[in-house]
Amino acid sequence: MRISTVLNVFATFLLILSFFLLIPLFVGWYYNESGHGIPFLIPIGINVAVFLVIKGATFRRERKELSAKGGFLFVTITWFGAAATGALPLFLSGAVPSYTDAYFEIMSGFTTTGASILTSIESLPHSILFWRSLTHWLGGMGIVVLTVAIFPLLGTGGFQLVKAEAPGPSVDKVTPRITSTAKILWTIYLVFTLAETLLLMAGGMNLFDSLTHTFGTLATGGFSPKNASVGYYQSAYIHNVITVFMLLAGVNFILYHRLIMGNLISVRKNSELKAYIGIFAVAVGIIAINLFRSEIYDSFGKALRFSGFQAASILTTTGYATADFDTWPAMSKIVLFVLMFIGGSSGSTGGGIKVVRIVTMFKLSVKELKYLIHPRGVFNIQLNGSSVRNDIIHVIAGFLFLYLLMLLVTAMVVASAGNDIVTSFSAALVTLGNIGPGFGRIGPTLNYAYMPSYVKWFLSFIMALGRLELYTILVLFTRRFWLR
Amino acid sequence: MRISTVLNVFATFLLILSFFLLIPLFVGWYYNESGHGIPFLIPIGINVAVFLVIKGATFRRERKELSAKGGFLFVTITWFGAAATGALPLFLSGAVPSYTDAYFEIMSGFTTTGASILTSIESLPHSILFWRSLTHWLGGMGIVVLTVAIFPLLGTGGFQLVKAEAPGPSVDKVTPRITSTAKILWTIYLVFTLAETLLLMAGGMNLFDSLTHTFGTLATGGFSPKNASVGYYQSAYIHNVITVFMLLAGVNFILYHRLIMGNLISVRKNSELKAYIGIFAVAVGIIAINLFRSEIYDSFGKALRFSGFQAASILTTTGYATADFDTWPAMSKIVLFVLMFIGGSSGSTGGGIKVVRIVTMFKLSVKELKYLIHPRGVFNIQLNGSSVRNDIIHVIAGFLFLYLLMLLVTAMVVASAGNDIVTSFSAALVTLGNIGPGFGRIGPTLNYAYMPSYVKWFLSFIMALGRLELYTILVLFTRRFWLR
Repeated sequence: MRISTVLNVFATFLLILSFFLLIPLFVGWYYNESGHGIPFLIPIGINVAVFLVIKGATFRRERKELSAKGGFLFVTITWFGAAATGALPLFLSGAVPSYTDAYFEIMSGFTTTGASILTSIESLPHSILFWRSLTHWLGGMGIVVLTVAIFPLLGTGGFQLVKAEAPGPSVDKVTPRITSTAKILWTIYLVFTLAETLLLMAGGMNLFDSLTHTFGTLATGGFSPKNASVGYYQSAYIHNVITVFMLLAGVNFILYHRLIMGNLISVRKNSELKAYIGIFAVAVGIIAINLFRSEIYDSFGKALRFSGFQAASILTTTGYATADFDTWPAMSKIVLFVLMFIGGSSGSTGGGIKVVRIVTMFKLSVKELKYLIHPRGVFNIQLNGSSVRNDIIHVIAGFLFLYLLMLLVTAMVVASAGNDIVTSFSAALVTLGNIGPGFGRIGPTLNYAYMPSYVKWFLSFIMALGRLELYTILVLFTRRFWLR
Repeated sequence: MRISTVLNVFATFLLILSFFLLIPLFVGWYYNESGHGIPFLIPIGINVAVFLVIKGATFRRERKELSAKGGFLFVTITWFGAAATGALPLFLSGAVPSYTDAYFEIMSGFTTTGASILTSIESLPHSILFWRSLTHWLGGMGIVVLTVAIFPLLGTGGFQLVKAEAPGPSVDKVTPRITSTAKILWTIYLVFTLAETLLLMAGGMNLFDSLTHTFGTLATGGFSPKNASVGYYQSAYIHNVITVFMLLAGVNFILYHRLIMGNLISVRKNSELKAYIGIFAVAVGIIAINLFRSEIYDSFGKALRFSGFQAASILTTTGYATADFDTWPAMSKIVLFVLMFIGGSSGSTGGGIKVVRIVTMFKLSVKELKYLIHPRGVFNIQLNGSSVRNDIIHVIAGFLFLYLLMLLVTAMVVASAGNDIVTSFSAALVTLGNIGPGFGRIGPTLNYAYMPSYVKWFLSFIMALGRLELYTILVLFTRRFWLR
């Protein structure tokens, strides 16, 4: 692993990030916000300066492909670096007086968690709110994937990077060239963005709110420019549009490409998609009946709408709310709690354990039951019509265990600040799973502002850990990684 | 699988159970309790009658070895049957007016859970309290293992039975013959029982209380004849004796046999034992410091004693309490909550996921991290100095997933009765893990009496499911099991 190569690619990324920092600059200019420029120009300046220094220092070095180890290091540096520089506008503008809080907020943005430390969202300038939501959109499809899509100069090493950042246990190569795959994914993402923005505007939302809510939806992020989240809008149409797009964002984007290519069979026999739809349907059914019978809503249709929105929001790890689900009856809350363990599909913008891992582990346990009856039988685990290799099962089982371990460790750290079990454990679930709001003191109408600094820094780290699916970051903590 | 063979072995078990029902009968006679006899004589009569009917009906049938499938069916029938007949004394004596409650209480006894529906324990007759604690003792080392130890007539099929009942992913054969192994395990168990009883009596406890507390300790059960559990006693000596014996009961009993045989090396390099001690030490350290700094106890020594007792009680899945840990500060509670996920060692009387499974999964995830750095490397998972086979890893990973799945399903059932998340989830943890008291409405000073009947029946099932480590019972729910 050559550090110079890693830094070289990182420099390229900083340049791309600087370009995106220009957008909220224009938003601020459009809304005529006083002093809006400086908070964005400073990080742009820093990024460009760092870019020039790195490029200058590594100019004479021989260009090399990124190794596997280099890939992990690059992706990790990129994500923590993105949050570090992305937090500056919030801090410098005075919108968020503490840098810890600003870092937490922007890491929550990039990782599409949607956990917030803001207590009064609507009082912030448009430029800041737009940047906050834009980090969702960039992090959703992946800032490294974006880098690869824009700068194909990385060659085959790019695949390594996408694997290190991509959600899900295995990345299907849509095309032989990873650059093409990255471009296809980002194009589909752009089309969805355009579609949802237009549909929300058709429902009476203004352009700014439509765009920011679309970013939060498609990235399965959850930041809203409104204090009451999507609950601000009383329109059933808006709720339903967002529900549908949250669900669409929780599907593997590769499947959309297959659909466009006319490969309907491959989509139909996708095990993960079937399970995803099934889990959603069952969850909505239970919650809707529970809410209706508890007389929370006066019609079953209304109960269905609110339960559909919330189940989609939690399952896809978005975190939007149209109701304070922490005040719902016990049964509905526990179903949402269970959904927090699952998450979106692999290759989607959703976080969590991911449906495909749940499906694989479920099939593994069924296989073991079969072995008990026929100890000499030969049983395979079938996924999408073909059998899963042993090493993939090991990766998934190891992931599941690490996930649980990190959940418990995180809960302990949150509890060390005096938080009760529900708050501590749900905070762990919703930051590692990139969901956002949880139960107890971090319920949908509350926020993370009251947490002490060390908890905020730790949770920022946990959000990145969850977004990069543990292994990419944890590997840096092994002694073996740093051996020559 | 021949049903007649299964029933034949079951009949033998009923006869053994009848013998043990005689003991509380004598306890009642000793304490001169009025009408104490009938509640025990009726189940004895029923058991003997069923024994004779089965033996008569299967007399002419050819004797066959129990098949694997037959073994699962037998063990399941035995456990549910034991609770059904064992609940009769409580119900018939009027001590527990509802048969549902009596069944819950005795299933909790046999499975060494220690979850209780009793609201006033000390007002019950001695015969009933003794029987309640005796079910712990019988269930701890295993009623099927006991049957095999006493009636070696089952031949090699006995090994199948012990495997179906035994705690832990794999049973080491101490001796080539399973009957000898069963006898060795029960002998060690008896010696420990004698030792703890004498030590408690030396601390001033009477024989009755010493015996019942010993049963609850060594079986990692948790039933106490006192309303305040072990907290009834103010003696540091008694607390410490019980702490030590809880810890001893949470160790693989095979290791004691090895120790007696002078095989010290094998004990020293046992991965599970090392992890078990390590987890306990870390947990006690965190809780003791937290309790001392929160000024719950005025000296660090006292904080250490109470935290040692509670950590041992929860880790070994006993469930005794010397303090109301639900009122402890958040940090201590979350550590106990984490311990609830772990449990005792394989081959111990403790429940839960078991330390060896946690260790194996941890090593699996570390192995996956190594593969990320050296994709073409060859890494093994080492346990006790030798490498673990792939199929064992699959069994453990499948178990872990099923365990989590059952946890969430159980939590949903408990929540359906209107219980909050903490109560629902901890009820699932402590019944599936055979621990007993949890947090919220089922805290150490509370009980399960208020739960509706359907929840009690479901939790009784879950306790058995946890005690028999899921697979043994769940396999009966597959269509394949019932195919010829």
